[in-house]
Amino acid sequence: MPTTTEFSRLALFIQDARARVETRLHLALDDELGVAPRLLDAMRYAALGGGKRIRPMLSYAACQLCGGELALADAPAAAVELIHAYSLVHDDLPAMDNDELRRGRATCHIAYDEATAILAGDTLQTRAFELLTQHGDYSDGQRLAMIRTLAHAAGAAGMAAGQMQDMQAQGQALTLPALEEIHYLKTGRLITASLVMGAIAANASAALCDTLRQYGDVIGLAFQVQDDILDVTAATEQLGKPSGSDERHGKSTFPGLIGLAASRERAAQLVEQAHRLLDDVAAERDVSLLKDLASYIVARTH
Amino acid sequence: MPTTTEFSRLALFIQDARARVETRLHLALDDELGVAPRLLDAMRYAALGGGKRIRPMLSYAACQLCGGELALADAPAAAVELIHAYSLVHDDLPAMDNDELRRGRATCHIAYDEATAILAGDTLQTRAFELLTQHGDYSDGQRLAMIRTLAHAAGAAGMAAGQMQDMQAQGQALTLPALEEIHYLKTGRLITASLVMGAIAANASAALCDTLRQYGDVIGLAFQVQDDILDVTAATEQLGKPSGSDERHGKSTFPGLIGLAASRERAAQLVEQAHRLLDDVAAERDVSLLKDLASYIVARTH
Repeated sequence: MPTTTEFSRLALFIQDARARVETRLHLALDDELGVAPRLLDAMRYAALGGGKRIRPMLSYAACQLCGGELALADAPAAAVELIHAYSLVHDDLPAMDNDELRRGRATCHIAYDEATAILAGDTLQTRAFELLTQHGDYSDGQRLAMIRTLAHAAGAAGMAAGQMQDMQAQGQALTLPALEEIHYLKTGRLITASLVMGAIAANASAALCDTLRQYGDVIGLAFQVQDDILDVTAATEQLGKPSGSDERHGKSTFPGLIGLAASRERAAQLVEQAHRLLDDVAAERDVSLLKDLASYIVARTH
Repeated sequence: MPTTTEFSRLALFIQDARARVETRLHLALDDELGVAPRLLDAMRYAALGGGKRIRPMLSYAACQLCGGELALADAPAAAVELIHAYSLVHDDLPAMDNDELRRGRATCHIAYDEATAILAGDTLQTRAFELLTQHGDYSDGQRLAMIRTLAHAAGAAGMAAGQMQDMQAQGQALTLPALEEIHYLKTGRLITASLVMGAIAANASAALCDTLRQYGDVIGLAFQVQDDILDVTAATEQLGKPSGSDERHGKSTFPGLIGLAASRERAAQLVEQAHRLLDDVAAERDVSLLKDLASYIVARTH
């Protein structure tokens, strides 16, 4: 476990990353978009309403590991969070998971209405790609590599495919590999893209991008195992969304398939694995922040 | 009115453009995306199911006007059609226009289900941007300019804002300028982007892009006036979607606001205006195809 000093250094980084991305999201959702004020309101409601900002943190940390200033990761951090926000708005819709509570507040379609929520999700996605063509100090090649990485991770071979598989699997008993594939697609792909985009922003080598990709695949799964654990063990107030919702939705979970103790064991093993992957580059790079973030992902309580 | 020869030259171009974009859309929705087969099926159902392909035609025609081979416009033609297809899938949803018929077939959420249709729309959008990072022979700068143009036209300051305004205006009597703004956003912006992307693909000058932008704004409105006219005058079989649906949805239309004769007059004036805009570049360029397309847009019967 990290020491108290390590945790406070991590806490400062997290605070800084959250403040940075909040500012960038405000700028990304500015009044220039206000041709339809209700739509812009709903976009802001969905994207600026708190959230853990795990993905932006990972973009910042990856950028820093690769020798870039934090500011270089502002655009990918904001873009990946816009994609994440769009996916939450659409996943919460009545035709999908039909959730009414998110981040301790009404979901977007409850606070507005379904049509507005559909459009807000649509435009949060569009804005993510547009932002990567505009903001920040990058070469055209870097911008395109970030857009390609994000689109590939979010699209029909990534996050959205995971949500589709997740919907189709409801009420079915999954095998562990099938559950892991859904999580890999639905959560892991975007987490990995956050890291790789941060690395691209810092002009990292292909080898370093590859290490971060492997690290991302491992902590993405760890993140989801912990999410499943929290859904069983945490209270609704703590989560900001209804606890026990996986079971109500008939979704397979790690605790449901292998039990709570084995799930915790699995999460710890994944963190170990992530740490070992980082050890490969520890000679030239300060990997302590990304190690701490891996630990944080399974230590978090909401 | 164009002569018979002019119409058959136009007919050949339309046939060619449709065949080209069909092939590109097939390639864009290939099996590599097939991580969730039902999702890929729904995407193909929505994007490959016919359609007038007006936007791709305009990309091809603009590219040709600017001295580019047709093949150069393949990527923007496919990308803009993917965005158009996504918007139709989402606009047809029960929470939006609640339409069950499109292009003579069941709409996507009827043929599949609502959740699948939401995801299919989402991923058609993602694929449009991804495709522009991958396909075709362009500089990085051209790719980025096309992505920026498309995102700006489709997003919260463009097409989606138009749909939001359209939803909010249902059941209200609009003024003519308010109706024109909705149509400009909802239809015109993407039509203009089709032309500008075709010009970017051919490395056109800023001046030429600007002429095409003005032409696009005018024919975009002409297109929508004709759409409103057809909704009143054509049969459901002819349209492939229920005729009279604007009135049933409580939507303001040009015939509703100014009558059928004045709407036809307005459409003809807009075509005239489009032709005059093209005359400015007729000394150096062959503008006949784009002139014919402007006429075609208001002469079409579905």
